[in-house]
Order: sequence, then structure tokens, then C-alpha cells
Amino acid sequence: MKSYTQYLWFNTEKRQAFINITHQVEGAVRKSGVQEGLCLVNAMHITASVFINDDESGLHQDFMEWVESLAPYGKDYAHNLTGEDNADSHLKRTIMGREVVVAITRGKLDLGPWEQIFYGEFDGKRRKRVLVKVIGE
Amino acid sequence: MKSYTQYLWFNTEKRQAFINITHQVEGAVRKSGVQEGLCLVNAMHITASVFINDDESGLHQDFMEWVESLAPYGKDYAHNLTGEDNADSHLKRTIMGREVVVAITRGKLDLGPWEQIFYGEFDGKRRKRVLVKVIGE
Amino acid sequence: MKSYTQYLWFNTEKRQAFINITHQVEGAVRKSGVQEGLCLVNAMHITASVFINDDESGLHQDFMEWVESLAPYGKDYAHNLTGEDNADSHLKRTIMGREVVVAITRGKLDLGPWEQIFYGEFDGKRRKRVLVKVIGE
Repeated sequence: MKSYTQYLWFNTEKRQAFINITHQVEGAVRKSGVQEGLCLVNAMHITASVFINDDESGLHQDFMEWVESLAPYGKDYAHNLTGEDNADSHLKRTIMGREVVVAITRGKLDLGPWEQIFYGEFDGKRRKRVLVKVIGE
Repeated sequence: MKSYTQYLWFNTEKRQAFINITHQVEGAVRKSGVQEGLCLVNAMHITASVFINDDESGLHQDFMEWVESLAPYGKDYAHNLTGEDNADSHLKRTIMGREVVVAITRGKLDLGPWEQIFYGEFDGKRRKRVLVKVIGE
Repeated sequence: MKSYTQYLWFNTEKRQAFINITHQVEGAVRKSGVQEGLCLVNAMHITASVFINDDESGLHQDFMEWVESLAPYGKDYAHNLTGEDNADSHLKRTIMGREVVVAITRGKLDLGPWEQIFYGEFDGKRRKRVLVKVIGE
């Protein structure tokens, strides 16, 4: 069995952002040399997300407005009594998801026609990491 | 390490549907010959879901009404300005989830007593795929 | 390839509870002897969750109130016509997620600085299981 680990770093200018990381994950799969296996991609921070969807700016706007409506910033969250103001970011990331697992088939990410992998930041302006772990043969 | 890949095709009559795919996934695990490992099952389309829950028709009705209330069809989504009318489907699938990973123990899906695997379609009436990837030994 | 399977049992006093299971999962990884691989942790019951977030009591209160607002107990759910009263628990667990997959790097769970693994119970007061499956080398 082969395995490969890579950490991707992000530091977004805005509090919230979606970044297409498909190419970076493909690069990790190539470096792993794995032909058949699984690739885990997960946010290592609990106010950020890794998810798969379409790379369409209108849809990304819809996602941002939608998670805001489901988990608004600035409500009187108990977590924010600790001095934080990011309780909403924890909830938003829960909607969008912490991780994806993608199959590797014949040396490539086995993605559907519109599937793209995104980093979803909900409390940015600081250095944060994503983990890419490849295992297989 | 062994691996096995199978694609399941769906073309639902209705726009939204849940289909129990547990037997098909069990078939893939059998064909893989894997005794101990992991089985990834994921939608390859970004308006569809794979999730695990109970096979109870009342609950499925509740799920359908619930995702409709959280992400209603026909709102003025930015994505729908592209000519699509399925922004709601992208959001609904995000709630229900893209994928499940199931353990394989002694040659079988290691599911709890009520766990069943479902394909969740939110923008059907077209051919769409699910990927089953088995790795292990 | 090595693999290791462990079942964790829970029986919460209250209907809803979050329990930090990080140490128990770390124990399973140690016993597996796996240095590089993947660790799946999933609820085996469909009204319970396994998720990763911060171990902060205020945030846990926020999560509980949030899932209650998104999927309230006691609404007229179709599932509850079967004699159950836990349709809301199925929906709540869907928001929080069934499973997590965590990388194992150099023999340890490769978690970010605040990542902790939780069992999320939404219909407790009965014995329920979590599955930990480790594969790798």
C-alpha cells in the first residue's frame, strides 16, 4: 500500500470565500503514485469546509446567502460569550461539510463531469490548513 | 490491497426521488472480494446525494418536505440566471450529503440494524451516475 | 494492509447529548498499529451523529438550539404516524453528519489544533453503537 500526505495552506482576504482546490488535489494524487485508491480532503479548522460542487459564481453566491440565512452572523450565540464572534462560522461549515472522500481510478480523481473540490472559508483572514491524504496502490 | 470500481446509473421519472441502493452496493462488495476495508459510495452529479437512513416512506416524505422548506424551488437564485432552474437542487443535496463511507467487515457492509444506503435525486429525469469504490484486503 | 475494527457503546441519560470520543478513537488507532492510513468513525444508528468540531460548551449549546430550530421536535412529521416520536432526530443527525474520516499520519490521528471527534445523540436513553474502522499500513 502507498500513502501520501500533503497540507495546503490558505489565508483569505475576506472573512468568507470559496476557493477551487481541484488542481492542487490532483497534484497530490499524481505525486502519490497511487493508481487505485481513496483521497481524503478535509479542513483542519472547525470554521472551514471542504466540499464538492459546481464552479459557477452565481451558485457560490447562492450558497453564501443560504448559509447566512440558516446560520446568521451576529446572533446572540453562547459561543460568542467566550470572546469569539465566529459561532455562525462553526454552524455554516457544518452545513457545507468538513471533508470529502474521492475515489482514485487509473491514477486520477474519479470525479463526475461537474464535480470540483472547494475550500470553504467562513472565518478567514488567518492562516489555515487543508489535509490531503491519499492511500492505495 | 484489492480495489474494485462500479458505476450505478439512474434515470428517475420524477424530479426528486429516493432509491434504496443497499443491495447494489452489497453486490459490488461481493464482487470486490474484499474482507476488511472501506466502501465509498458517492453521487457523481452535484444535484444528487448518497445518504444513509431508514427505509420508511413516512420519513422519506418528511425529508422531502424538510429540504424543500430549507431550500425552496423557484426562489430567485443567482444560479438560475444561467438558464438553469436547479439551484435549489444543489442546496438540497448539500443538506443530504454527497457521499457515505461504509466499513467492510468479514466480507460484508458493516451497517447498523436500520442503516440503508439511498440515492437521493433532486434534479432527475436524466441519466446520472453513482460511484462505488471498494478498497481493502 | 492492516485493518482494525472497534465498536463503541453509548447509552445517554438525556434524549440529546454530545460526547467527546477523541480518546477512544485514538485508542483504536494505537491498537491497530497503523502508521499511515484512514480512520472511519460512524454512528451505526440513524438518529445519531459523529462529527468533528470544538470542545466548547457554549458552542455545543448553540449547536443544540440550532438543530432544534431547523428540525423541531413535535412537529406533525409523517414518520411519527408509525408510533415513533423521533422524526426530528433523523433530520438533526442529517445536519450534523453520520460519519467522519480522519487521516492517520505517523501513527496518530492527523487532527487540526481544535478538531475533536464527537458522538452526537438525538434520540438517546438506549444502547447505541459507533463503529471505528482503521485501515492502512
